[in-house]
Amino acid sequence: MKNLDERTITQAVIERNSTSSNERLVDIMHSLVKHLHSFAREVHLTEEEWEMGIKFLTEVGQICSPTRQEFILLSDTLGLSTLVIAQNHKKPLGCTEATVFGPFHVQNAPQLELGSNISEGVNGTPWFVSGNIQGIDGEPIPNAVIEVWQADDDGYYDVQKENLNAYQGRAVLKADAQGHYYFQTIVPEAYPIPHDGPVGKMLEALNRHPWRPAHLHFMITAPNYERLVTHVFKEDGEYLDSDAVFGVRSSLIAKWDHHEEGLDPNGNFQYSPFYTLNFDFVLNKQKVN
Amino acid sequence: MKNLDERTITQAVIERNSTSSNERLVDIMHSLVKHLHSFAREVHLTEEEWEMGIKFLTEVGQICSPTRQEFILLSDTLGLSTLVIAQNHKKPLGCTEATVFGPFHVQNAPQLELGSNISEGVNGTPWFVSGNIQGIDGEPIPNAVIEVWQADDDGYYDVQKENLNAYQGRAVLKADAQGHYYFQTIVPEAYPIPHDGPVGKMLEALNRHPWRPAHLHFMITAPNYERLVTHVFKEDGEYLDSDAVFGVRSSLIAKWDHHEEGLDPNGNFQYSPFYTLNFDFVLNKQKVN
Repeated sequence: MKNLDERTITQAVIERNSTSSNERLVDIMHSLVKHLHSFAREVHLTEEEWEMGIKFLTEVGQICSPTRQEFILLSDTLGLSTLVIAQNHKKPLGCTEATVFGPFHVQNAPQLELGSNISEGVNGTPWFVSGNIQGIDGEPIPNAVIEVWQADDDGYYDVQKENLNAYQGRAVLKADAQGHYYFQTIVPEAYPIPHDGPVGKMLEALNRHPWRPAHLHFMITAPNYERLVTHVFKEDGEYLDSDAVFGVRSSLIAKWDHHEEGLDPNGNFQYSPFYTLNFDFVLNKQKVN
Repeated sequence: MKNLDERTITQAVIERNSTSSNERLVDIMHSLVKHLHSFAREVHLTEEEWEMGIKFLTEVGQICSPTRQEFILLSDTLGLSTLVIAQNHKKPLGCTEATVFGPFHVQNAPQLELGSNISEGVNGTPWFVSGNIQGIDGEPIPNAVIEVWQADDDGYYDVQKENLNAYQGRAVLKADAQGHYYFQTIVPEAYPIPHDGPVGKMLEALNRHPWRPAHLHFMITAPNYERLVTHVFKEDGEYLDSDAVFGVRSSLIAKWDHHEEGLDPNGNFQYSPFYTLNFDFVLNKQKVN
């Protein structure tokens, strides 16, 4: 392997990588090296551009922290996340579609009772969310675990707030024996993804805005069903047609009903306007391997 | 841009990226997104593998520091560096070939006089290096700036040594009016690239060793000539056929002559064996844009 040049290097790297006993890794690296090199050849990448790429990726890695995942943002904004999710969740018609996971999920969110107010003290317009978790044949899925997380009405998640050491706008709930779920929170607003880092600079250079339409995150798990990671978007919300992370599906857009002051779904009197959302989730049967 | 799926997402991202006034960036991102997505489709990347990829890239970024550039190591070990250098330095036959820059160059290395001992106190077998800097027609290139850097005889660069706040084995020299250069140092040994990080783990998973054959780095610049970044490798050295970063060119392998104790090229008596290397560099004319 001497005298490699721009024509012979790709095959040389693929051969060097081919002796591992991990066949899946060999296949992945084969395709990765082939496409990485094809990219560099196709655009005739210069050394200065290569240096900019090294610098960019280094900055992406260095800004990552326990509460910020810039590589997920990069994957999201380049559409890779949507591609990977779509090709791994082909489902029968009628199942709720999956969408991007996003960078703001955290482990160990508080486990709250059905009906709880998960906003945990954040100000905002009250919102009463409810629905059913069911299978493709309409069967209720009892006791499904429902994790929800959301931005506040300034567009920030709890983990983005410095000096906040509490969970806000996130919880793990459990559907009841009939697969019914309900909780109270506040209405989240559209927000820009964190754009003070390298991904934000990339979007700016590409003449792209960093905004996501208003949405509520759900991750729903139940034995014998495929895990569902998805959002529910607000009908008529801004940015539905230009979500910075390519996460919108028409089937995930729902009416967030506005109500004037009056009785809320819990029978309590609300002295200011509030919203309700009713959304049912249809889970796919677990693939049997 | 709703209802994107694994078939439509790629074109949607390319279109979203296409409105920037930076045409070169648009072209680069078009090719990058196309190949990134083709890779994910071709191997049917799973969500678990995507997560492993995010984690790997994050680790690569986080281990970077002012003295460690893991993304360059990644580029080097995947052959991307060799490809980019090769396609940007096609030269007339007779010019010295370029090879990888590597991660151990530093800015502001000490400027030393011709003939200096650049090892700066590191122990090792004395080595007297000399040669000429010339153009393709044999014309001497006077006063060329010659930056050299190297590992010691344990295979470490100065920047890898904790608690060392001095330069060792690196210098900026200036060829004389006839293009002649000469300096003293110690013989560098083969060494493994830093493999205690994510790139090392990758090499291990791929059943690859991290070793580079013994070499001396040169970066040579002179007005009106193309900058040359290259190595000189040791003839008969280990790993010439399996350099972890694909940097070897036959034309860059030279005899490092062994001498028993006796007079060195400076006319001083060496009481132990020493080496000499004579290597001429042929620079390409600067491209006129």
